[in-house]
Amino acid sequence: MRPIITLLTDFGTADGYVAELKGVLLSVAPDASIVDLSHDIPPQDVECARLAVARYWRRFPAGTVHVVVVDPGVGSARAPLAVQSDERFLVGPDNGVLSPSMVAAGSRVVALPVPSAASATFHGRDVFAPAAASLALGTPIDSLGSAFQDPVIRRTPEARRGRDGEILGEVIAVDRFGNAITNLIAPRGGRIEVAGRVIPIVRTYADATTGDVVGVVGSSGFVEVAQRDGSAARVLELTRGTPVTLRTPRA
Amino acid sequence: MRPIITLLTDFGTADGYVAELKGVLLSVAPDASIVDLSHDIPPQDVECARLAVARYWRRFPAGTVHVVVVDPGVGSARAPLAVQSDERFLVGPDNGVLSPSMVAAGSRVVALPVPSAASATFHGRDVFAPAAASLALGTPIDSLGSAFQDPVIRRTPEARRGRDGEILGEVIAVDRFGNAITNLIAPRGGRIEVAGRVIPIVRTYADATTGDVVGVVGSSGFVEVAQRDGSAARVLELTRGTPVTLRTPRA
Amino acid sequence: MRPIITLLTDFGTADGYVAELKGVLLSVAPDASIVDLSHDIPPQDVECARLAVARYWRRFPAGTVHVVVVDPGVGSARAPLAVQSDERFLVGPDNGVLSPSMVAAGSRVVALPVPSAASATFHGRDVFAPAAASLALGTPIDSLGSAFQDPVIRRTPEARRGRDGEILGEVIAVDRFGNAITNLIAPRGGRIEVAGRVIPIVRTYADATTGDVVGVVGSSGFVEVAQRDGSAARVLELTRGTPVTLRTPRA
Repeated sequence: MRPIITLLTDFGTADGYVAELKGVLLSVAPDASIVDLSHDIPPQDVECARLAVARYWRRFPAGTVHVVVVDPGVGSARAPLAVQSDERFLVGPDNGVLSPSMVAAGSRVVALPVPSAASATFHGRDVFAPAAASLALGTPIDSLGSAFQDPVIRRTPEARRGRDGEILGEVIAVDRFGNAITNLIAPRGGRIEVAGRVIPIVRTYADATTGDVVGVVGSSGFVEVAQRDGSAARVLELTRGTPVTLRTPRA
Repeated sequence: MRPIITLLTDFGTADGYVAELKGVLLSVAPDASIVDLSHDIPPQDVECARLAVARYWRRFPAGTVHVVVVDPGVGSARAPLAVQSDERFLVGPDNGVLSPSMVAAGSRVVALPVPSAASATFHGRDVFAPAAASLALGTPIDSLGSAFQDPVIRRTPEARRGRDGEILGEVIAVDRFGNAITNLIAPRGGRIEVAGRVIPIVRTYADATTGDVVGVVGSSGFVEVAQRDGSAARVLELTRGTPVTLRTPRA
Repeated sequence: MRPIITLLTDFGTADGYVAELKGVLLSVAPDASIVDLSHDIPPQDVECARLAVARYWRRFPAGTVHVVVVDPGVGSARAPLAVQSDERFLVGPDNGVLSPSMVAAGSRVVALPVPSAASATFHGRDVFAPAAASLALGTPIDSLGSAFQDPVIRRTPEARRGRDGEILGEVIAVDRFGNAITNLIAPRGGRIEVAGRVIPIVRTYADATTGDVVGVVGSSGFVEVAQRDGSAARVLELTRGTPVTLRTPRA
């Protein structure tokens, strides 16, 4: 099996930065399969990247190397990291973007050295890509850097119980379809209060009528607010942080 | 030769859905070549996806597996399908998106079962990706599901002859360059009436002067309305369905 | 090692043109690794593509074939070219987009024949992809076409010295982050005049305070104008060609 290296960045592709990064990867590990996951993370949106990483890091085969470069602090004192967790590897900056892998039991984190010739503005090319290619070739993580303590950990905000038994949550992401993903985990049958509306929870988008706004249990297990054939985020003006309340049948 | 799996979706990439789908594919078929065709199909635009499929499905080598997920009806009663046609395979929902392969002689269509654990909102990950990976590994299509009758077939609207011998057509797509692709098949030498203008048909964009609007026989054989160094769709306000009339030299 | 074919276009992906091109490549060279570099070059922006090519063409392993299709003159008299330079290969139109490889010592350029059946609007599919696949399979470049003299060469505009010792440059590109990349090569310690402001040159973005506009030596060695946690291009209205002046400590 050829080694797999995945890429998640906020670089876009038109400026050639991703191209340079891929050139470095393939020069070191010419037989690697490079798998683009996204280069369209909104610029510097660490939280968006972290949520994507949470979705995918464990779904790839053991041995996969995930490169995650959303790095507003590039060149500063923030450490460049490599992580080994559940037989996968990840490289990226110490800003929380790799958290989903670091909170898993048995994970190991090392700080990568920054070569003196590295550009202070492009560690993706000069620090993360070389480390990722080395991991893909089988280099042990401990030979890439020294153990790193206390990395930045970001977590999805937790919903909490209100005084009447309702669950108080919030929107944690809005996807391309305008679905607003919340931090609520719901049994079916509850109802959602959001933006002054009360909406039912249905099984899938197609169970609603065109234009209706409903709750749906999304593919990661969280409740989403969705509009059939439209954008719930636009029509209800939902953004990250918008409060959402869940009332279960008995609440 | 490694198996080839192509992907066409309306997911965008920033939300991590494509990443999850790729993780599933590579976990089952780690040696597959995953080829991104597009994740930028406009959300739920089945027709845009169908036209793209028509362009590419047969251009790939025999054995290629095409995954096509533009699926407004995900989780509803619409069937998930797998198709074998002209030695290629396709998987996607029964909404017409796979039509170009299904109208070819000798095609076979099966309905894929939906596992009880599948998310009702993400068949791409839980139904189509596992089926595609199995096909890539050589699993016969008949072992994936039961024969399916009467799939939804979508066709490009056909141009028709007017009373004076002219051909009455319409715009079927607008591309990134603002070229409006019509359903007219033209011998050179005709002229086009569109949006109140009469324009000549030339050989290629560069045969026009900057700003001129012309007709061109595009790369699929259909007449396009194009503006040299500009966007014909913007300047003439052309969208899918805009009427276009072809008058041949003798009409 | 499997042959590597990279792709840079202004096609976007939703229209299926890139899909067709990939189908052609894989039909001829099924074992090639196809590496997307960008399909989001702004339509017909030859200069943007040229700057990207300058960044990446030499970073890939020897033997890599780079396909570069930003081609406003498709179908006209402009020649389709193949280049061999420093053990890499490039194919694309004769409009300057391949210049970075052609100005290197020892480069060879051939003009590719256009088959009579080729679409006059899609040489990417019918001329460049077949040539690239042949090169990837090891076909010598000289067997693909005849030597071509005097290709169009585009160069980054050079900064020049002003009467007071200052260096007069300009913005050559604006990247996704709103950083305005200039043609100035700076020792640290100088200061930049741009859009009526005087700004310092710092080591990296994070050395500035949120909202501050600074100069930074970017990853290609050129000075960039950047805003911490913002877009310098937007706040200062910088575009390609905006004048920028460098004053070194002694100037």
